[in-house]
Amino acid sequence: MSLLLTNIGELTTNDPERGRRHDAALVIEQGRIVWIGDAAAAPAVDQATDLGGAAVLPGWVDTHSHIVFAGDRSDEFEARMAGERYAAGGIAQTVEATRTADEETLRTNAAALCAEAARGGTTFLETKTGYGLDIDSEVRSARVAREVVDSVTFLGAHVVPAGVDAREYVDLVRGPMLQAVRPYVDAIDVFCEAGAFTVDQSREVLTAGRDAGLALRVHGNQLGHSGGVALAVELGARSVDHCNHLSERDILLLAESRTVATLLPACDLSTREPFGPARQLLDAGATVALATNCNPGTSFTTSVQFCVATAVLQMHLTIEEAVFAATAAAAWSMDRDDIGVIRVGARADLQALRAPGISHLAYRPGVPLTSHVWKDGEPIGPAGG
Amino acid sequence: MSLLLTNIGELTTNDPERGRRHDAALVIEQGRIVWIGDAAAAPAVDQATDLGGAAVLPGWVDTHSHIVFAGDRSDEFEARMAGERYAAGGIAQTVEATRTADEETLRTNAAALCAEAARGGTTFLETKTGYGLDIDSEVRSARVAREVVDSVTFLGAHVVPAGVDAREYVDLVRGPMLQAVRPYVDAIDVFCEAGAFTVDQSREVLTAGRDAGLALRVHGNQLGHSGGVALAVELGARSVDHCNHLSERDILLLAESRTVATLLPACDLSTREPFGPARQLLDAGATVALATNCNPGTSFTTSVQFCVATAVLQMHLTIEEAVFAATAAAAWSMDRDDIGVIRVGARADLQALRAPGISHLAYRPGVPLTSHVWKDGEPIGPAGG
Repeated sequence: MSLLLTNIGELTTNDPERGRRHDAALVIEQGRIVWIGDAAAAPAVDQATDLGGAAVLPGWVDTHSHIVFAGDRSDEFEARMAGERYAAGGIAQTVEATRTADEETLRTNAAALCAEAARGGTTFLETKTGYGLDIDSEVRSARVAREVVDSVTFLGAHVVPAGVDAREYVDLVRGPMLQAVRPYVDAIDVFCEAGAFTVDQSREVLTAGRDAGLALRVHGNQLGHSGGVALAVELGARSVDHCNHLSERDILLLAESRTVATLLPACDLSTREPFGPARQLLDAGATVALATNCNPGTSFTTSVQFCVATAVLQMHLTIEEAVFAATAAAAWSMDRDDIGVIRVGARADLQALRAPGISHLAYRPGVPLTSHVWKDGEPIGPAGG
Repeated sequence: MSLLLTNIGELTTNDPERGRRHDAALVIEQGRIVWIGDAAAAPAVDQATDLGGAAVLPGWVDTHSHIVFAGDRSDEFEARMAGERYAAGGIAQTVEATRTADEETLRTNAAALCAEAARGGTTFLETKTGYGLDIDSEVRSARVAREVVDSVTFLGAHVVPAGVDAREYVDLVRGPMLQAVRPYVDAIDVFCEAGAFTVDQSREVLTAGRDAGLALRVHGNQLGHSGGVALAVELGARSVDHCNHLSERDILLLAESRTVATLLPACDLSTREPFGPARQLLDAGATVALATNCNPGTSFTTSVQFCVATAVLQMHLTIEEAVFAATAAAAWSMDRDDIGVIRVGARADLQALRAPGISHLAYRPGVPLTSHVWKDGEPIGPAGG
């Protein structure tokens, strides 16, 4: 079965040789893009969808979320809005609720957030464990995550649970807990920050993960100059996320490395931290990704569109840079070159907008613009259910 | 026919005696709210809708928009994001496109934006003329607006059209143009700003409108200390909108008057003006409303939810203050006490959220939360089509 998408007003390919092209069409077969060209030159196919001049771009690649949890932290959010500063301690509340919830609740909640993300154009979603913090609870979270998202990251080193010695907990995480979750996860992450884990503790956790064959990701420099960025670069992590507080040296390190700086603008707004220095990072030559950080404490949104709009309106990215960051750059941080781009041979993970061009993603803030979503060439999201 | 809405998790009434109440229900009959109470005590009715614990609040009252237009200014938006400062001159481009469009195009475009607003929870929408700027074009815009929105404002004094003498244009607006649009409009407005109209010119236009029986609204202090706020208070305008640049004296004037300060956060982001000082205004005792300013140049959004979220996240309003500003305070600026509140006798203009409470409007930025909308007691918006 071949499917033609035609009458595409603006096709954003993220392919340096093609860029944004107008009056385009593409053909999908067996979940892959097999042809791209002018609408007028489209080949014969089994089925065709006329998009009426709509913009088409890659589906969002959301590489940072924490969606396996129970409970709600809207009270903490309201307190923060009233002036309380964010500290990592709030995580304990979600840990308590997640440990005591039954597995079906965790699965239902996570699946609902996945579905919401898909309606908003997300075709690839990573999520992390980290609200279990004991072996059984982390394994359960990892197993649920494996069922509902595209990539799972082990974040046993989210915070040290209450009443546990930090030294003992680090040894648990890098030892038996890592072994227990290993079958379910693709990467390992650590919250390298005051109130969570030191640089040395973080290094121990990450190297254990690397030895177990996992990709490395780091939460770094969210609340201060934590050293997380330098550690991520030192160890060749795929990504270091947050990056609110960067020194000139951090920016240089990122620019000279293959580590992606993943910025989380919705989290920055919800915690009132300064935005990560996206413009300076790009100007220095670093690779910048954008992600939601969907979690019940600091960034309870699945909307990559909101992050892209904020990146343009407030972080001074161009719309092309913001879309690239939320698709191709994000995919690169997952070591994937078959998503986040529109080229022959890539997976048909795509979205269409109720708009003639991607500029509308920032020009029309708050208006849900995703009209169609295809994953592996199959309709999901608003039009597909 | 009576309709019971029951199992309301949190009912935001905007009624000082009731506030936010939990496990509530209400009954609608002939477009009005006829009963409010505990879900357990609900009376017998013809029909019932179980809201499953969802939050219910008044529909948004959006008092500032410019939705009768043709054309697109995404190019100007992209240029502004790349560093160009907003100036009122861009309006001329929309004037040109609007004048040359046929009436059916204007009607279709405006109706599509109304429908989009309704899906997002808006149950009352004001719109302005001001992209015609000659008698025939202004009348046509006013007539189209009258068909599609709830309140129409005459904004002949938007800018002085190219090639026209300012003195002559002011006389046209306050004379024959005002007479020609009078049958279609409820209020008069003027853009009192450098590049548009001086305080003296604005006073002439507004007093002519007042003499013709129209309510007064003012665009003031958007790009500088234009004197628009002081003029609005002097003339007893219902509202002065934008208010980005206020002196201490402006804030005092507003606090001591019945003139509402209507802030437009989506416009502020899209033009990169500083946010209006919402917190200082409320603390001084002024009445603050929030509106979208939906227009193709500086704020192309219908999303009041986005404005409310921005007001909480970035302008330091509490969620109750932000919701009140976008409902009850906005209604007050339209001289209406039967909308924007939930009390017995008020119009049944309501929305329900995919969330247990209004805090989620800011806690979940970018996620479309409106699940049901009722206007005059009839379902519209997402659930009603």
